[in-house]
Amino acid sequence: MNNLKFMLKPKSVAIIGASRVPGKAGRVILENYINTGYSGKLYPVNPNAENLLGLKAYAHVSEIKGNIDLAVIAVPAPVVPEVLEECGKKKVKSAVVISGGFAEVGNKELQDKIVKIAEKYNIAVLGPNCLGVLDTRSRVNTLFLPTYKLSEPRVGYVSFVSQSGAVGSTVLDVIEGEGFGLSKFFSYGNAAAIDETDILNYLLKDKETKVVVMYIEGIKRGAEFVKVAKKISMKKPVIVLKAGRTSAGASAAHSHTASLAGNYAVQEAIFKQFGFTVAEDLEDLITYAKIFSLEEETAGNNVAVITNGGGTGVLTADEIGSSGKLRLAEFSEETKEALRKAMPPIVNIADPLDLAGDADAERFGKALELVSKDPNVDMIIAIVLFQTPGADSTVAAEIIKQKNTTDKPVVVISPGSSYTAMQKIMMESGGVPVYDSPASAVKALTALLDYSNYRKRKTD
Amino acid sequence: MNNLKFMLKPKSVAIIGASRVPGKAGRVILENYINTGYSGKLYPVNPNAENLLGLKAYAHVSEIKGNIDLAVIAVPAPVVPEVLEECGKKKVKSAVVISGGFAEVGNKELQDKIVKIAEKYNIAVLGPNCLGVLDTRSRVNTLFLPTYKLSEPRVGYVSFVSQSGAVGSTVLDVIEGEGFGLSKFFSYGNAAAIDETDILNYLLKDKETKVVVMYIEGIKRGAEFVKVAKKISMKKPVIVLKAGRTSAGASAAHSHTASLAGNYAVQEAIFKQFGFTVAEDLEDLITYAKIFSLEEETAGNNVAVITNGGGTGVLTADEIGSSGKLRLAEFSEETKEALRKAMPPIVNIADPLDLAGDADAERFGKALELVSKDPNVDMIIAIVLFQTPGADSTVAAEIIKQKNTTDKPVVVISPGSSYTAMQKIMMESGGVPVYDSPASAVKALTALLDYSNYRKRKTD
Repeated sequence: MNNLKFMLKPKSVAIIGASRVPGKAGRVILENYINTGYSGKLYPVNPNAENLLGLKAYAHVSEIKGNIDLAVIAVPAPVVPEVLEECGKKKVKSAVVISGGFAEVGNKELQDKIVKIAEKYNIAVLGPNCLGVLDTRSRVNTLFLPTYKLSEPRVGYVSFVSQSGAVGSTVLDVIEGEGFGLSKFFSYGNAAAIDETDILNYLLKDKETKVVVMYIEGIKRGAEFVKVAKKISMKKPVIVLKAGRTSAGASAAHSHTASLAGNYAVQEAIFKQFGFTVAEDLEDLITYAKIFSLEEETAGNNVAVITNGGGTGVLTADEIGSSGKLRLAEFSEETKEALRKAMPPIVNIADPLDLAGDADAERFGKALELVSKDPNVDMIIAIVLFQTPGADSTVAAEIIKQKNTTDKPVVVISPGSSYTAMQKIMMESGGVPVYDSPASAVKALTALLDYSNYRKRKTD
Repeated sequence: MNNLKFMLKPKSVAIIGASRVPGKAGRVILENYINTGYSGKLYPVNPNAENLLGLKAYAHVSEIKGNIDLAVIAVPAPVVPEVLEECGKKKVKSAVVISGGFAEVGNKELQDKIVKIAEKYNIAVLGPNCLGVLDTRSRVNTLFLPTYKLSEPRVGYVSFVSQSGAVGSTVLDVIEGEGFGLSKFFSYGNAAAIDETDILNYLLKDKETKVVVMYIEGIKRGAEFVKVAKKISMKKPVIVLKAGRTSAGASAAHSHTASLAGNYAVQEAIFKQFGFTVAEDLEDLITYAKIFSLEEETAGNNVAVITNGGGTGVLTADEIGSSGKLRLAEFSEETKEALRKAMPPIVNIADPLDLAGDADAERFGKALELVSKDPNVDMIIAIVLFQTPGADSTVAAEIIKQKNTTDKPVVVISPGSSYTAMQKIMMESGGVPVYDSPASAVKALTALLDYSNYRKRKTD
């Protein structure tokens, strides 16, 4: 499926079914292309319009003079084969079929028709019944969702593959509020032609993708999936949320996308065998995407906790204790001595290291500097409660500085509301993952440890 | 400890240690009293100032003419006994000792001194080494945290008791961003005199408190705690987060507040025996506080899921399946028939009920109305993905309407960013709990079920 590159980096896009009616899918897609600054050629196709939003409209793709790399198809299901046939004749390289009304409502025959046409003309077809693709760099965006409801995430290195459009769009929206960025998004719907395995094969070699996140309801081609799974997780971390953990979920998945969920326990075991990080919930996807997009790896499981709130330090120690994999670091004698000299007497030299409620940037900085040099410390959690008098953006800046001075993973826990949210975005933009609870931070570090160990075992 | 009412509803407050220096605790507290609109009498006490922020300052409490219901003490630890003695002579009813430097740094003797003075003069003393109290109705607020960092939560019925000031202030800040409100907050620090048991005894009879949330590191008087625990959970739900789940956490708790965490498993069993909801994490506190402040009880464990996103419906079915306590409802034949008539053909009549991505307020309203009347349904989860074209604030308004028409609990799942956040606040202000993931919604309903069953068993 090398043609996927035409779908993601098209020099020209035809929007077939571009509508004059505000709110219609084809109309929203055209608006989004115009509003988000796509710089290639744009051809609205609509037999009943001469102009659309200031662009010349075409009755058929055949009337367009130049080459077409991507056709976005948003016409009623029965018309799709005819439109795709026209695209084939015009040598269109790739197509996203937004339209629903195929296998998901029992219309398997109509779906098979478009698969045949795709094969005949060698068109890379995504869908039908999908949201399509989004690429933050090329600004390709086939989602028919209004931008005021869902702002586009910033440019980054996480690519997200979702069988469900609904799950996809909500996760995109959540990512937009986070400080890490997105590379590509794929909603592949019924997967008539291109499926999760094809997309993984593409992302395996994609330099703009450092982390892959997947939501899947069923796997179409098990053997091929396993093949690419083996290869990809040696190159980049893959996070997977698989629906159908329970019989209730599996039966709901079947009526949703006609997916056969399969035995979850078996699949989970396979995912883990290939070093995938298994998420159990939507929130996990964000937790894991964040750590893998901002941290490389960890050499071990010894965690130092530095905090300006004693109670939150205790709760974090509890989470570390119950993780079963991480442990609180035992500082070296040198570190203890250096801390004793550098810290005010109120600070008890122990892990968690409680810097007290009046800790400022200088105290945080000194503590991080000394602790990160300790050979007994592999990872650092800094708890910064911005509600305290001493903590402000100078602390955030200091943490960014220290994190970029050490090779060891540094994550922050900062629960709070609007004031904290500002500091969080600042720190994440500076490369520091920020979590809003001890539980999610410890989950993230545990996943990083598991993946680091997997890579080590495989390369040893 | 009847004098706690003077602490929470004081007609007059003396702030001892009110400072001229911006940022000092005594100064911030005075500023907060002025800024948040406390309507009683306010007396700054500072021997080196004649006026403070436009108010006449007093050198000693003895110079104040009127009665003093509450003294907020923010002076260095060695001076506290002397100041408290003066308060006693002045017949001050209650005192919050903000100052640190007592048992938590090994200075048990100094702490015992203030306990004796409190007993001698019958002053209700909270602290030392604490943030004190906040009452959203009386606008008493002894927290020395700047309001721009921590906005005051709206008025509500959740009271929050925290042994740790840091945990307390961050949870307050998080609550401020939620649509449910706060009644009272207690940070009781070293608990030299008033402890968690005294506060529970007060909240037991407090009509402004419908839900109690606690963070504790150690319980001081086990037998008395058990007595009030037994009584309170027949009247109102109690949510407890107990530090020291693991040995790592227990040892951190000991060095934090010198608390003996005790055997966690034993304590957890006791909490559950008395119908307390046990939280494992900060996020759980919010999840549970929300459901109990907005919902009464449930008659059973059958859940109907109504969604405008198929995938999120599947994930919710998975969470219900793995809860071990809830189950998907089986709609009655009457409901199925009525739904078939009311819904467009694209809607497959099943639970989860997938209303499709173009569902609008009318479709949501009709589905909720029919499903909530079904005798086979005990609770309803409505998944509203506001990223979809059909969902906007008319859907939010419709859900508020339906929720206030039925006696059955209705909760919403709406993951997203800023556009969704607006809808969430609107729905919660209208009495509908909104969660951002299937996992938290299902946790919340499970806790509601457990508590409802506890009450039923006890009253049968």
